[in-house]
Amino acid sequence: MGPITVTESTTIRRLPARAASNWETIAAVLDEGFVCHIGFVGADGRPYVIPTTYGRVDDVLYLHGSPASRMLRTLADGVDVCVTVTLIDGFVLARSAFHHSLNYRSVVVLGRAVEERDPAAKAAALNAFVDHIVEGRAADTRAPNEIEVRKTLVLRLPLREASAKVRTGPPVEEPADLELPVWAGVVPLWLHAGTPVPDGQGNAGEIAQPRYLPAQQAARRSRVVR
Amino acid sequence: MGPITVTESTTIRRLPARAASNWETIAAVLDEGFVCHIGFVGADGRPYVIPTTYGRVDDVLYLHGSPASRMLRTLADGVDVCVTVTLIDGFVLARSAFHHSLNYRSVVVLGRAVEERDPAAKAAALNAFVDHIVEGRAADTRAPNEIEVRKTLVLRLPLREASAKVRTGPPVEEPADLELPVWAGVVPLWLHAGTPVPDGQGNAGEIAQPRYLPAQQAARRSRVVR
Repeated sequence: MGPITVTESTTIRRLPARAASNWETIAAVLDEGFVCHIGFVGADGRPYVIPTTYGRVDDVLYLHGSPASRMLRTLADGVDVCVTVTLIDGFVLARSAFHHSLNYRSVVVLGRAVEERDPAAKAAALNAFVDHIVEGRAADTRAPNEIEVRKTLVLRLPLREASAKVRTGPPVEEPADLELPVWAGVVPLWLHAGTPVPDGQGNAGEIAQPRYLPAQQAARRSRVVR
Repeated sequence: MGPITVTESTTIRRLPARAASNWETIAAVLDEGFVCHIGFVGADGRPYVIPTTYGRVDDVLYLHGSPASRMLRTLADGVDVCVTVTLIDGFVLARSAFHHSLNYRSVVVLGRAVEERDPAAKAAALNAFVDHIVEGRAADTRAPNEIEVRKTLVLRLPLREASAKVRTGPPVEEPADLELPVWAGVVPLWLHAGTPVPDGQGNAGEIAQPRYLPAQQAARRSRVVR
């Protein structure tokens, strides 16, 4: 596993107590999330933030999409990119409006992406995208054929410059507020997966729901105690 | 309510069927989300994407934080900003790896923010931040005092240039894949609010849980059918 360099640009300047720039936290947040927000500077010089899915293989974050995607073509040119993943863990309800907050975990990755041209690495990345959504799914589906592989642009962003920021725990309160007649505490939040719905197409009625799809649960089992 | 101009930069070029650039969709996504991702170009010319909370009052999106926040001070200088809110609605599991997807709704807002200096508008924004988290909460908490108002920088971003993108429904399948022995369908996802946990500080044991805090439910009631 490559080292994670904490550079000034990803060191949290405000609230340093919330910075948790170590590899385990970064990997856990990336693995628990499903969507990242990609920031880049467009040809017009303006910033753009686009949500997309991703996959992780060791210390590489993979992005993918159509070779016709304007965003992916921009990124493949090797411009600076910022990829942020945020998990929302709870409402933090203080006795004062001022101290309201959210519990969350977020990771910010900086760097430049390059097209993944190595066929084996690209194939592994294509599996990672599917297994990142539901573990065990890739082996159960029809693998990409040659045309589909060609129709998928895969970008490789090494996890070299990254930081995590985490807020947990109860509200911070002003001592003078502690006896106010106001309920205060945390409402835990998590992304919940409901009952899977078969698509009703083709042979849908004949195929049993696979065991890697649980009936109802938090979308990731690894979620921390909030 | 001001008009929403769909400019080229926010018109979705890929997958135009997923563009839903109308005010109702945009407002619903902003109201259902809790965290936005703010993109801006730093002093070093690199893009940064930072998650934060927000509030909406009519056709204005409000951001806030400490006046010492580097990001807020950068934004208050009137630089171009991109604010993106994404809701994850479901895993879309196709019979082929290639057609896996997510159901989601996202909004991209472009523009420039200015500091909200009008005292009444700033007070309304501070309420909106709290009520955006849990409706009815602002009236139940100690209002910001003069020092806290001064310690909160509020930025106003008019919702003039915005677009929404939505994916719903079952997987798209290749006709030849429809008889493969693979389960396919959608796993619905939503942000779930668990049982509120009192913070145990001060008079916590004496205050009943307020009625605006439901026992367990989706974090927003307005969520669409997936």
